[in-house]
Amino acid sequence: MSKPMGAIPVEFAADGPMLTVGGRTVDALIAEAGDTPLFVYDLGMVDRRIARFRAAFPSTQLHYAIKANSYGSLLAHVAKQVDGLDIASAGEMDLALAAGMPAADISFAGPGKRDSDLERAIAAGVTLNCESEGEAARALAIARRLGVRPRLAVRVNPDFEIKGSGMRMGGGAKPFGVDAERVPALVRAILAAGAEWRGFHIFAGSQALNPEALIEAQQATLDLAGDLADSIGATPSLVNLGGGFGIPYFGGETPLDVEAVGGALRNALERRHPRLADTVFAIELGRWLVGEAGVYLTRIVDRKQSHGKTFLVTDGGMHHQLAASGNFGQLVRRNYPVAIASRMDEPATEEVSIVGCLCTPLDRLADDVMTPAADVGDIVAVFMAGAYGLSASPQAFLGQQPALEMAVGASG
Amino acid sequence: MSKPMGAIPVEFAADGPMLTVGGRTVDALIAEAGDTPLFVYDLGMVDRRIARFRAAFPSTQLHYAIKANSYGSLLAHVAKQVDGLDIASAGEMDLALAAGMPAADISFAGPGKRDSDLERAIAAGVTLNCESEGEAARALAIARRLGVRPRLAVRVNPDFEIKGSGMRMGGGAKPFGVDAERVPALVRAILAAGAEWRGFHIFAGSQALNPEALIEAQQATLDLAGDLADSIGATPSLVNLGGGFGIPYFGGETPLDVEAVGGALRNALERRHPRLADTVFAIELGRWLVGEAGVYLTRIVDRKQSHGKTFLVTDGGMHHQLAASGNFGQLVRRNYPVAIASRMDEPATEEVSIVGCLCTPLDRLADDVMTPAADVGDIVAVFMAGAYGLSASPQAFLGQQPALEMAVGASG
Repeated sequence: MSKPMGAIPVEFAADGPMLTVGGRTVDALIAEAGDTPLFVYDLGMVDRRIARFRAAFPSTQLHYAIKANSYGSLLAHVAKQVDGLDIASAGEMDLALAAGMPAADISFAGPGKRDSDLERAIAAGVTLNCESEGEAARALAIARRLGVRPRLAVRVNPDFEIKGSGMRMGGGAKPFGVDAERVPALVRAILAAGAEWRGFHIFAGSQALNPEALIEAQQATLDLAGDLADSIGATPSLVNLGGGFGIPYFGGETPLDVEAVGGALRNALERRHPRLADTVFAIELGRWLVGEAGVYLTRIVDRKQSHGKTFLVTDGGMHHQLAASGNFGQLVRRNYPVAIASRMDEPATEEVSIVGCLCTPLDRLADDVMTPAADVGDIVAVFMAGAYGLSASPQAFLGQQPALEMAVGASG
Repeated sequence: MSKPMGAIPVEFAADGPMLTVGGRTVDALIAEAGDTPLFVYDLGMVDRRIARFRAAFPSTQLHYAIKANSYGSLLAHVAKQVDGLDIASAGEMDLALAAGMPAADISFAGPGKRDSDLERAIAAGVTLNCESEGEAARALAIARRLGVRPRLAVRVNPDFEIKGSGMRMGGGAKPFGVDAERVPALVRAILAAGAEWRGFHIFAGSQALNPEALIEAQQATLDLAGDLADSIGATPSLVNLGGGFGIPYFGGETPLDVEAVGGALRNALERRHPRLADTVFAIELGRWLVGEAGVYLTRIVDRKQSHGKTFLVTDGGMHHQLAASGNFGQLVRRNYPVAIASRMDEPATEEVSIVGCLCTPLDRLADDVMTPAADVGDIVAVFMAGAYGLSASPQAFLGQQPALEMAVGASG
């Protein structure tokens, strides 16, 4: 029996047999790029996500977590439209600055910052989200040595997490942030040292599809920020509420009702602690902004039978799409949405497994799915490839050729 | 309660507080390399594995599967001592040829070979392990066009697999090789086309620690090769028996009794089918030759408490050691052997979790293990890092700095 796969995002269309991305057929895109495998990012789709966020969250800043996808032209396009970039390494800091984002609107999280990372960030004027008392002390010492007033926020490890979150980043003992009860003392030390205190970064989870869970976590985050500010006796200039907006990868999953989350946050902000009256709030999104906008295109190089099963072997695989192969944090492999991108006008008539070119049984792109009859030369599209795709994959594994990337279809 | 970790390979020693690799202290190695994170490969350990194999398998060729580790000086060192190199991509073919291996002793497996890959291999004189009838037909057509007599072996998908194998590569419907019952017809077609038939490649599994399971699989492989040769009516010049020799990553695992496997194979070879009398047999090893010889060294950049737990945060992580983080084919995360490499002379007195620098909860190097009290600046060693380490990891993830690699300690 065939297995389910996730739903193809509704914005994708076809022109005759060919899938289109940003209004252009995939064969034309591959011809322009020169080869497969190819990631194509539809900037128009990203723009529509940004517009949808702005409408639903009119009083909240939007930050982009560039670890989701830092491909040059995509990042430059997004940077122009968001209020801040959140980075997780000195390498990402270089990318964020190159994308034209002012240093004051860049914030640097990550539990393992080296002294050299801290020094570069402080010298550039980037905000450091301090992950521990030790890191804050190192940052203050480096700033004194440099003769610079550092911008320091405190990442808080909250006592709660987004329920049903795809990836838990708060609640209980964690390597991220400072336990909430120790935060006031740390902020007082930062203020006493004469640093510019930039507020809180509170991240309770990621990849949530249940609006109620997000609403509850955002309310708890606001309450925590108010309590902390009250305890400190000072108003944070910014509270980064984290993100956690999920996208539906798998069959049976429902897209997040972003408007419901936005409405609830507006109400919660109206009732917020008076100590937060002048605070700016930000939501930090990565996956939700760009994940659905990316398609991974790979060509079928063999069609073969084994013990009654049909395998389509492609020139791509897990070295570019580790998450789609089921090897990136998933306990059970499930199928991302895939399609035969060169036979979009044909009915799904056969059950196949689509695999990558690597010589390992881990390299699976779709197990036992129904597709139109496809053969060598046809193009396979793996959707939901815009976030944590190429950069989160073992690109050098087995010495296969690298994937290409391109961005298309920015709206006017 | 603390969790177990795998055993440190017995060949590692210490000089005072410092772990040594190839007789040199890790602080000296890091100083020479210039920074952490650093992979160090002990070529002397690799040499001893090769010697042990030669003693246990006196009449069997040894091939190295370079996908396990293709670091330049390690590959060049191994290439001089083995009878063949097995590759899985055109990129690996370039590495194998650059390491000085004659093309006739290189064989190319992999289910997703492009026409361009086939052409380059045929032109170079490399043996193609054909994974399907379709691939063989493409190879023959390309060879005709080039006016070259191609070297073609057939990869067989056997009806059995190594029991308890860490990774199943045979048995049932698989994307690898040709189902055994269709192999005779394919070999006859290869012979009829005038190609040089190079025999069989039969791979039944990997990462096996149970000698009985390997002995049984090798016997079944010999039987299958005899039956196929008999059916074809021709003698294969070479039968690659696969590999599958495992190494003990986790607590409670026992090293493979290689001598028991070798003794059983000698007996099995004496009783082999007469049609295989003139056949050369090879075993293809990757992980077993190099896995234990590698150590990943990373420096502690933060020590922090959260809700009663102690976290040591390092400057390395899953972007270099995906398998040790538990995200490479494992269903349940277990601890690789780790040590505080700069406090080898101190007793393990505290329970810690060692994490990487990436801003994701997936980035764990050791959960709840007992170690000597360590602090910022100390060095963490993750053992069993010589195979499927750096190249099998998402090196570009989050834009962290790349790992360094070096090889030391070749025996005279």
